[in-house]
Amino acid sequence: MPRAAIMNQTIQQRGEPRVVIVGAGFGGLYAVRALKHAPVRITVIDRHNYHLFQPLLYQVATAGLSPNDIAYPIRSVVRRQRNTEVFLAEAIAVDVKARKLVLHDGKISYDYLILATGASHSYFGHPEWEVYAPGLKSIDDALQIRRRILFAFEKAERETDKAKRQALLTFVIVGAGPTGVELAGAIGEIACKVMARDFRNIDPRHARIILVEAGPRVLPSFPEDLSAKAEVSLRKLCVEVRKNSPVTSIQPRVVVIGNEQIPAATVLWAAGVIASPLAQSLGVPLDRAGRVLIEPDLSVPSHPEVFVIGDLAAFIHQTGKPLPGLAPVAIQQGRHAAKNILLRCQGLSSEPFRYVDRGALATIGRAAAVANFGVVKLSGFAAWIAWIFVHIFFLIGFRNRFIVLFEWAWAYITFQRSARLITGDGDKMFATEVEMHKEEH
Amino acid sequence: MPRAAIMNQTIQQRGEPRVVIVGAGFGGLYAVRALKHAPVRITVIDRHNYHLFQPLLYQVATAGLSPNDIAYPIRSVVRRQRNTEVFLAEAIAVDVKARKLVLHDGKISYDYLILATGASHSYFGHPEWEVYAPGLKSIDDALQIRRRILFAFEKAERETDKAKRQALLTFVIVGAGPTGVELAGAIGEIACKVMARDFRNIDPRHARIILVEAGPRVLPSFPEDLSAKAEVSLRKLCVEVRKNSPVTSIQPRVVVIGNEQIPAATVLWAAGVIASPLAQSLGVPLDRAGRVLIEPDLSVPSHPEVFVIGDLAAFIHQTGKPLPGLAPVAIQQGRHAAKNILLRCQGLSSEPFRYVDRGALATIGRAAAVANFGVVKLSGFAAWIAWIFVHIFFLIGFRNRFIVLFEWAWAYITFQRSARLITGDGDKMFATEVEMHKEEH
Repeated sequence: MPRAAIMNQTIQQRGEPRVVIVGAGFGGLYAVRALKHAPVRITVIDRHNYHLFQPLLYQVATAGLSPNDIAYPIRSVVRRQRNTEVFLAEAIAVDVKARKLVLHDGKISYDYLILATGASHSYFGHPEWEVYAPGLKSIDDALQIRRRILFAFEKAERETDKAKRQALLTFVIVGAGPTGVELAGAIGEIACKVMARDFRNIDPRHARIILVEAGPRVLPSFPEDLSAKAEVSLRKLCVEVRKNSPVTSIQPRVVVIGNEQIPAATVLWAAGVIASPLAQSLGVPLDRAGRVLIEPDLSVPSHPEVFVIGDLAAFIHQTGKPLPGLAPVAIQQGRHAAKNILLRCQGLSSEPFRYVDRGALATIGRAAAVANFGVVKLSGFAAWIAWIFVHIFFLIGFRNRFIVLFEWAWAYITFQRSARLITGDGDKMFATEVEMHKEEH
Repeated sequence: MPRAAIMNQTIQQRGEPRVVIVGAGFGGLYAVRALKHAPVRITVIDRHNYHLFQPLLYQVATAGLSPNDIAYPIRSVVRRQRNTEVFLAEAIAVDVKARKLVLHDGKISYDYLILATGASHSYFGHPEWEVYAPGLKSIDDALQIRRRILFAFEKAERETDKAKRQALLTFVIVGAGPTGVELAGAIGEIACKVMARDFRNIDPRHARIILVEAGPRVLPSFPEDLSAKAEVSLRKLCVEVRKNSPVTSIQPRVVVIGNEQIPAATVLWAAGVIASPLAQSLGVPLDRAGRVLIEPDLSVPSHPEVFVIGDLAAFIHQTGKPLPGLAPVAIQQGRHAAKNILLRCQGLSSEPFRYVDRGALATIGRAAAVANFGVVKLSGFAAWIAWIFVHIFFLIGFRNRFIVLFEWAWAYITFQRSARLITGDGDKMFATEVEMHKEEH
């Protein structure tokens, strides 16, 4: 019997199976798209009404892009995909026995479930550091970080005490993975180039930007020669790189490295992540970072109808250690989970996943980047062009691609940042500041 | 003695006078620019780090534009104006006797003061309505309104109770001045065109958009024939217009007009404004809307060194009633206040202000507007083109002009809105929803 015939038969016997996909990041969204013509009913559930292009989130945090340049309404993505509905809701837990997903306001049954809810920051047992050192995972995080960076310069302009002024102009980024390096490079650029002539009482070029890394080099996931080149590019942007420097404490306006206290009004966290708590409700083994130890076909042990992908999953069957938390991993896993669901619908057995590594990129401010494509390694301007090409390609929607390219060209030519707005605190900004003063005294 | 000689002499005698300008809206910013080459030291004080182009704020609220498309950093505007410094601070009061402006965290002396702090919403003695019916004055207001509109559609998609669903799809806009008309038209467009095919369980075209006006017609400041044409355009966008309908009460999810109760999850306020409370500290007569009754030269009675302009001022010397709260009034007054300060610096007497009315415009959704240029009145597409031209012309910065034109062209061709993001509540959105439910029960 040909495949199509089997498939139709199965559907008639069972009715169309319901596939619930939780999280519309890279993993979830590519799974949805791969099921476009499939004979299933799909429900996509996300806490936000948009898909977020995380790799460019640091540019929202550093005033280069607007939130809507890197976000796209989930409804618009699936408008023409008539087998798919979208619910704005928060998933709380999975009841694997009853095959139900528990939402903040109800339950939803599934025949197949794809969990792709990602990860958030981990402070290595110091959750109290979070208020002083925000991490970068959501648009609201990015706007908060933008607010802190820009507000620090504004306060410094009016501060008459020299030590306080220097603390306001000190920015510490903890963790020198891609996010930390990209944040540090972008802040360096803002201080040394963008804002150089904008103040009357301070010189932003005297700002200290300190990138702190516990390990022996920046970008530890890249080859050593590219790490060295990235470090040179960072130093050109006035970034101090502190390697082998584990942070021992973060207090209000102070970061402690070993015994050294660094007064700094702005501290950003890019050091560790932990998987979304949804994983815990599955009742299956997790790794130390809270990720689900999935089967070779991406499903959960003993539950072949539940798939876990992206940052929520630890896939250790290829190299012996988990695949990195990168967009290409999530995209390939999303497509593969969709394929395995279709195989199962047809009564066939699922296939093991295999990650195809096409390389990694990281950018370090203006016209500098590193790229590792395995046999080919690039750095400097060539890597930057490759970086631009890859990121524009994966952005969703013509409008976003056009605007982001325009913003980058505009920033490159004029040295300006178009999104230099302190927003989101309403009229509470100065009230908050008063509170912070109280805290100190 | 020639003018220049007098001027130099005066400066040498007095030192450069300090001009403090509070508020970087249209009035404040055009005053700053007019003093670009003047022999004065200028301090600009604003609660925000950007100049906001208020006439397009409703487009941020209705997901058409991003905040940074209509905002521009104040520092960037005055970067090359070396006689000017910018302070991010909140002005609390004026000590006219001591010639000091009181900030949230200190005081600042002035020789001349320009107050241009504008107005905020007035609920006609019902401040308790504000939580249910937010007004539109700041970027944070706009993002809150956007969140409420988009979230209402999302909740309706998942609501199974028919009456609750209809309340979620009912949008009431109170007040049919330009802001109310523009908001209603834009929401009508979103419901009937933009989102028409985006949902599976609801049809956004069944949304009710109700524009409520206490007076006998929409756009009361325009000629009667244009009001009638605007009403026709609104009805084409599925907007119900309720004239002669004063709102008697606003409760959670209910608006009361006379004895009629309208269940509505989203209520927006565009009915009244009150001047910034800074005016009260001057100790001079104010009008009913809290505005300063200024002298013909824009100064405060008995304080020729203090000027009040824009929405904070009631200028009644031209027509017997206050000039309207429009950008052109603020711009012309800002320039005139700057001119009068220069005259005073030269030991000359100030000149009376005279407003030159070049007309008024209002837009009503897609390709429709009304324009009153005195002898020439336009409506429909021609007025819309005039509206676009005027608004692009007054936007600050090439980048903003280019992006806004691109967004409008894109929206016109594709019927899409690029800023359809629910942001700003962080992870508290669902928590808030739970709170709102509690409130009801």
